[in-house]
Amino acid sequence: MPNPLEFYFDFSSPYGYIASQKIDELAAKHRREVLWRPFLLGVAFKTTGGVPLPSIPLKGEYHLRDMIRTAKYLGVPYHHPSVFPISSVSPCRAFYWLDAKDPKRAQALAKALYRAYFVEDIDISSADATIAVCAKSGLKADEVRSGIGDQAVKDRTRTEVEKAIGRGAFGSPYIVADGEPFWGSDRLDQIDKWLATGGW
Amino acid sequence: MPNPLEFYFDFSSPYGYIASQKIDELAAKHRREVLWRPFLLGVAFKTTGGVPLPSIPLKGEYHLRDMIRTAKYLGVPYHHPSVFPISSVSPCRAFYWLDAKDPKRAQALAKALYRAYFVEDIDISSADATIAVCAKSGLKADEVRSGIGDQAVKDRTRTEVEKAIGRGAFGSPYIVADGEPFWGSDRLDQIDKWLATGGW
Repeated sequence: MPNPLEFYFDFSSPYGYIASQKIDELAAKHRREVLWRPFLLGVAFKTTGGVPLPSIPLKGEYHLRDMIRTAKYLGVPYHHPSVFPISSVSPCRAFYWLDAKDPKRAQALAKALYRAYFVEDIDISSADATIAVCAKSGLKADEVRSGIGDQAVKDRTRTEVEKAIGRGAFGSPYIVADGEPFWGSDRLDQIDKWLATGGW
Repeated sequence: MPNPLEFYFDFSSPYGYIASQKIDELAAKHRREVLWRPFLLGVAFKTTGGVPLPSIPLKGEYHLRDMIRTAKYLGVPYHHPSVFPISSVSPCRAFYWLDAKDPKRAQALAKALYRAYFVEDIDISSADATIAVCAKSGLKADEVRSGIGDQAVKDRTRTEVEKAIGRGAFGSPYIVADGEPFWGSDRLDQIDKWLATGGW
């Protein structure tokens, strides 16, 4: 069984969202699965000293332009969120709650959450907003609410965030292919070649 | 006369070096000239709060790997410098000294300086090392020495660095195509399409 692509992303990350629209096709091309692993960039920033892009002079303005341009370039639907960035703890917990029961369905939920935030301009940071997206995806609101409030789910989320950072994830998306780390939606072409050739 | 590609780069920047190996061909494909504009990333960092990559936990280690991998991926000769990063004030001044007299030859010198640092592992930060590269490129050592010590050349260099940052250059390479800014050697594909289509 070949290694899955490890896909680390933050639900608040535009480049993570862009990669999420491309990674399944890339993996399928090389007969790989994708291990979806949301994490919290804010926690990684405590290690790296990073700050959210919009707060950085020059670089922040550039990236706003680049996010929109890159999405269009790749044919990915994109509406820059009115509220940006956001805390993504609630969507992250909802993901890991569902992942424990049904990983395939959790992947579909991750896409629905990303679509809500980056296409439909829904601020998914609150528990209520996350639950609403889950409900629209066919999950039972009450179950989601108790799931994301469950201490075991909170603990799993914390553990997964620590594991992501332990794997080196300092940004989003951060993708590991056969042990080799790639950062950014602009490294998908290198991942494609890495999987095709076994690396260089 | 179509606009030239404005190519802002730091002589200490691996991704700037990688772009320098590709930009002439890209520009020629679209019948554009390239305006080579070295600047000092350290000065931009005063505006952005940026720090040199090697000093950033996780991100620094990642980028060392990515620089080498990306150069190989693109077929660009690369030897990671033993001393990295370096101050690039001397090579920058040598460039602008020559640029005032002969812009085409200054481009060739920029390539020679980049090759010395990123292929031959010569630390080009000192005036002496910069002068040695210039001499090897057929320039007269005495003239270079007096050129890079000349107040007018120092002033021109400072002005060009300020102009680059005024244009938005927060990283290297930073390339402006018909007014549109692109950051990173991984944006050359977008620049190619931008020039071919007029933008999107």
